[in-house]
Amino acid sequence: MGIQKQFDVRIGTLPTGERNQITDVKGIRVGHVTLNEGEVQTGVTAILPHGGNMFRDKLVAGCAVLNGFGKTTGLVQLQELGVIETPILLTNTFAVGEVYSAVVEYMLSSNPDIGVTTCTVNPIVCECNDGDLNDIRHINVKREHVFEALRNASEDFAEGAVGGGRGMICHDLKGGIGSASRIVKAGDHSYTVGCLVMANHGLLADLTINGRNVGKEIADRIASKKDQGSIIMILATDAPMTNRQLNRISRRAAVGLARAGSFIGHGSGDIAIAFSTAQTIPHYQGPDPLALSAVHEEYIEDFFRGAAEAVEESVLSALYHGETITGVRNNTVYSLRERLAELQTKS
Amino acid sequence: MGIQKQFDVRIGTLPTGERNQITDVKGIRVGHVTLNEGEVQTGVTAILPHGGNMFRDKLVAGCAVLNGFGKTTGLVQLQELGVIETPILLTNTFAVGEVYSAVVEYMLSSNPDIGVTTCTVNPIVCECNDGDLNDIRHINVKREHVFEALRNASEDFAEGAVGGGRGMICHDLKGGIGSASRIVKAGDHSYTVGCLVMANHGLLADLTINGRNVGKEIADRIASKKDQGSIIMILATDAPMTNRQLNRISRRAAVGLARAGSFIGHGSGDIAIAFSTAQTIPHYQGPDPLALSAVHEEYIEDFFRGAAEAVEESVLSALYHGETITGVRNNTVYSLRERLAELQTKS
Amino acid sequence: MGIQKQFDVRIGTLPTGERNQITDVKGIRVGHVTLNEGEVQTGVTAILPHGGNMFRDKLVAGCAVLNGFGKTTGLVQLQELGVIETPILLTNTFAVGEVYSAVVEYMLSSNPDIGVTTCTVNPIVCECNDGDLNDIRHINVKREHVFEALRNASEDFAEGAVGGGRGMICHDLKGGIGSASRIVKAGDHSYTVGCLVMANHGLLADLTINGRNVGKEIADRIASKKDQGSIIMILATDAPMTNRQLNRISRRAAVGLARAGSFIGHGSGDIAIAFSTAQTIPHYQGPDPLALSAVHEEYIEDFFRGAAEAVEESVLSALYHGETITGVRNNTVYSLRERLAELQTKS
Amino acid sequence: MGIQKQFDVRIGTLPTGERNQITDVKGIRVGHVTLNEGEVQTGVTAILPHGGNMFRDKLVAGCAVLNGFGKTTGLVQLQELGVIETPILLTNTFAVGEVYSAVVEYMLSSNPDIGVTTCTVNPIVCECNDGDLNDIRHINVKREHVFEALRNASEDFAEGAVGGGRGMICHDLKGGIGSASRIVKAGDHSYTVGCLVMANHGLLADLTINGRNVGKEIADRIASKKDQGSIIMILATDAPMTNRQLNRISRRAAVGLARAGSFIGHGSGDIAIAFSTAQTIPHYQGPDPLALSAVHEEYIEDFFRGAAEAVEESVLSALYHGETITGVRNNTVYSLRERLAELQTKS
Repeated sequence: MGIQKQFDVRIGTLPTGERNQITDVKGIRVGHVTLNEGEVQTGVTAILPHGGNMFRDKLVAGCAVLNGFGKTTGLVQLQELGVIETPILLTNTFAVGEVYSAVVEYMLSSNPDIGVTTCTVNPIVCECNDGDLNDIRHINVKREHVFEALRNASEDFAEGAVGGGRGMICHDLKGGIGSASRIVKAGDHSYTVGCLVMANHGLLADLTINGRNVGKEIADRIASKKDQGSIIMILATDAPMTNRQLNRISRRAAVGLARAGSFIGHGSGDIAIAFSTAQTIPHYQGPDPLALSAVHEEYIEDFFRGAAEAVEESVLSALYHGETITGVRNNTVYSLRERLAELQTKS
Repeated sequence: MGIQKQFDVRIGTLPTGERNQITDVKGIRVGHVTLNEGEVQTGVTAILPHGGNMFRDKLVAGCAVLNGFGKTTGLVQLQELGVIETPILLTNTFAVGEVYSAVVEYMLSSNPDIGVTTCTVNPIVCECNDGDLNDIRHINVKREHVFEALRNASEDFAEGAVGGGRGMICHDLKGGIGSASRIVKAGDHSYTVGCLVMANHGLLADLTINGRNVGKEIADRIASKKDQGSIIMILATDAPMTNRQLNRISRRAAVGLARAGSFIGHGSGDIAIAFSTAQTIPHYQGPDPLALSAVHEEYIEDFFRGAAEAVEESVLSALYHGETITGVRNNTVYSLRERLAELQTKS
Repeated sequence: MGIQKQFDVRIGTLPTGERNQITDVKGIRVGHVTLNEGEVQTGVTAILPHGGNMFRDKLVAGCAVLNGFGKTTGLVQLQELGVIETPILLTNTFAVGEVYSAVVEYMLSSNPDIGVTTCTVNPIVCECNDGDLNDIRHINVKREHVFEALRNASEDFAEGAVGGGRGMICHDLKGGIGSASRIVKAGDHSYTVGCLVMANHGLLADLTINGRNVGKEIADRIASKKDQGSIIMILATDAPMTNRQLNRISRRAAVGLARAGSFIGHGSGDIAIAFSTAQTIPHYQGPDPLALSAVHEEYIEDFFRGAAEAVEESVLSALYHGETITGVRNNTVYSLRERLAELQTKS
Repeated sequence: MGIQKQFDVRIGTLPTGERNQITDVKGIRVGHVTLNEGEVQTGVTAILPHGGNMFRDKLVAGCAVLNGFGKTTGLVQLQELGVIETPILLTNTFAVGEVYSAVVEYMLSSNPDIGVTTCTVNPIVCECNDGDLNDIRHINVKREHVFEALRNASEDFAEGAVGGGRGMICHDLKGGIGSASRIVKAGDHSYTVGCLVMANHGLLADLTINGRNVGKEIADRIASKKDQGSIIMILATDAPMTNRQLNRISRRAAVGLARAGSFIGHGSGDIAIAFSTAQTIPHYQGPDPLALSAVHEEYIEDFFRGAAEAVEESVLSALYHGETITGVRNNTVYSLRERLAELQTKS
């Protein structure tokens, strides 16, 4: 909620959840491991969608590739089967292989049947390029970091330059992990839509806070680069949804992203994944059809609005929580809050 | 079942339904209007997925565009919303506009709310190019023909050179409407997969009946052309399925098509649509989530096999039922049965 | 440019073309036929991408279905073959069939080979639902109107409540046809990106003009409905592009749409089509590969920005040019300009 | 060409290339590292599309996910940008992470700009599950194996139970690496279509060799399992193609697959990637548009046929070259040739 006070803005019209974080969707936990040592400015963030065995009790999911200049693993199978069956991991681009191996090891350890009597497992590993702050050419994220992030996951988690977001840059300012949530009505029921982003995209001059083109106002003080960033947007809801509906919701991430100032740049891997915690899909199944439930399409519009607002606010929250950091090649990336404070002093 | 006796073949391994037609899926009806007057060799075929009001009680559906050189209407919305809300009409390419208008009129007549207090309606009109037998440049299919096809729809329907299939050519022989069905097990339950095709694709030399390259054997007697055809493949099942599952099933139409000899040609609009009659999706909905059901993914493989076998046999059945026809520009297209009879005589 | 003076805003940062309309891309012409008689408030708009024979000299094109609650025809083939081969027509939802038939007739008249010695033709007919102002249940758009719109197409064309846009409603205000253009640099070269929209989407409270949530300020005076609208966004450029690149550009329509206040609503058919006039693709071809050219991907980002800005401004331009209209069932839809004038008077 | 002699069949009608392998497309090289030690029956196969720096000189590519139960990396970016910029690696499912890391390291070593002054790199790592023969739960493929496979790549390469194909099972028989090629005419020009598969899919009873359902004939001797396999199909051509055309060609892999007996099973990750060696796309570009060339769509049909035939023959060639192997948990998988020999002896 810091963002609303600090920037004196209210993003959108829907009420926020209690924490205004993705963990307002019950059962979700988030864990970080942050590597912060000189040229090593990176890390890993784990999102655990529920507390059980994700392989045995999968969740319905969907996704949208807004711009595919990215290397997220697992989307091929997610699109085919409409479920996720592992935690979701966020890290830097070149650590994807290492984190993939770690997720395999993690899943195997609690599922002796995988690769023997049943099929394999599909790790969801998302990434952005933190090479402007982090010595990305050396892969410093190790399997142990992944296990640790999974272990220390909790409902309370930090935002900003932490975990996978440690070295990320957003609109030429310090980006990283941001989160938000919205309360949505559907018929007589009330649901939560939560979002967590790893924000590493956008140009300063385009940064827009609730309609105000703040980026332009502070653009003269900071050198702007090409958008080579990427943003990963994880959406979650406790409303019952089909894969098709979650695909639709994922696509609305573009709305929140655009409102905060992105043009969904060419060099940006802008990828949204949405899942529902309302029901689990068993890996092994009895002889009868699955009983499912799904919000009527008539009520889906508010979820679109909720997703768009939560993405927009998550981006701003990542910026709000960002601190000034100096990393590889002595590159320094500034905190939005500091820039805004300067702006207020001058004017 | 004519095809199995005539050609002395058994396509695949799954048992067929009673009629070995799409109407083995309870509730489905098919109606034709055939235009057969000299250069006018065309028509329209209507598939009514259930006997009620399709707009108020929609069906879950999916589709696959195997090759998009085609003009089928309604797929954009089908892919987004995962339902069909009108009968499915099959006709020639240039009649699509007229048939679209007819479906609109038909749906409006029983739904006074459409376009006034609720949204619009999404006609599914599929087509192939029958211009080698039919004077396609003059649009002879009229709205009345559509209404008539809808009216006379029944569980019993003819195959071959009838309805929308009147002027169609398949593997350089007389094609048109073909149908087949398969019985599929899922857990303790038994379901039906039905198929109806409008077959207008393929080259003679490629025609394959149950693995035997029959086309080559009779190829010297008939001039072969470029594949400019198209095939429409309508799949139906009484098993409960999600849109995603029906998309997957639709894609297996490629298997049946390939086995009968198609390469899914460049100039061919090869489009599959699949729907489930197991549950209806109400247009208007109360405050609670929809209760849905779906076959567990574990059991879907047999539906793939059923769909592939039913498509393959439907293509052959269209050929089996085709009669020799002379149409526009004095073009004559021959019946496969006659060619095969000749072949037997000679050998 | 009216919009920039009237609203005192400048949308985005790129320079506009001379007219600030899609016809800044040389060779494009636009024609309207407007039906305005009591309950009949509808029409048809034709976009002619070039002055030659579109079937013989096709244009590379791409598209994006932002939300598929729509009935646009021709996208299946456009996606497969990456070209358009007819003018693009915009009309109301239920007139799609009639307009499709008209386009077929129009194309056949100048191409005697279609349907005889060569394949068929793929009409691109786009639509929105104008049923709140127009008696959409009676199809008043006739073939003659289509021919007339094609005939009277010119570089100069009106915006607002004209042509296919006559009965359209945007953000609960009078919408319709809007257009804009941007100048884009790529390497040493300068290109134009033009846009024409038929805007029929959005809720009043969400309307945003250059970051200012104007809709909220005037929302108390106008009843808001559900978003059942749709918007068609036609993008054009004289830069050489591949189908893949034009698909990418089309997807950026979401950015402009979101900035003007849309959430890409559930009931909205939000469809973008982009084409390049830089080179033609011959229907008939000699023995050698085609020589093509394409902007290097490195330079595509500015086209994304140009497309987003042109879509955003086109939506606002449609609103700016809208006049207050009373149509079917005595529904009245107000002009944004009048509302804004009232607002200024009051404050 | 072994397959044609051994099985006395000729797959399809197009002429084969000199080697009847993917390396008939000039410039392509293939390297294997095979791990064969008791329970470790796995490996890695590298396909180098050209001999230069793949990152600086990318190749136009396309892909098709026939069934997405798979974990191939790199497809998101391939679909967006239409190029490949690394060699293609084939391995087992759980080794994907390790191989991904190796490809990153390999690419970084020859491109000091990656991750510093330019963007990241997109490894294409494909996989099948070899867990029935290989102790897949322990990741035995290491980075050194990847480097070695890349180093020893050559125009001459082995097929069968080698490299990534070491532990693969196809139609319940020993599968693995198979390859084939076809000569295709387009206008006055002659091109090559090559294919390499890693075949790990299908049920014995469905195995079909040139239309003959051989699998059924030998099915009583071998226990059949569920299709949990996957097949990776890499297609290459020296014809100039766009990304869209290569996507189309990739989709024809389904035809070859179906003809050899697959139903494109639920549990199978059936993924095709196609690339063209005809022209390179520079990573860094001057100020002018790229000059490209592409086969006219009129001529693409033969490439479809070539791709389908090459896939079908590659599957059979993988089987033909397979030897009987005993691996993890004492599972034995038999060679097709031995089974056929038995069959001949008995009859």
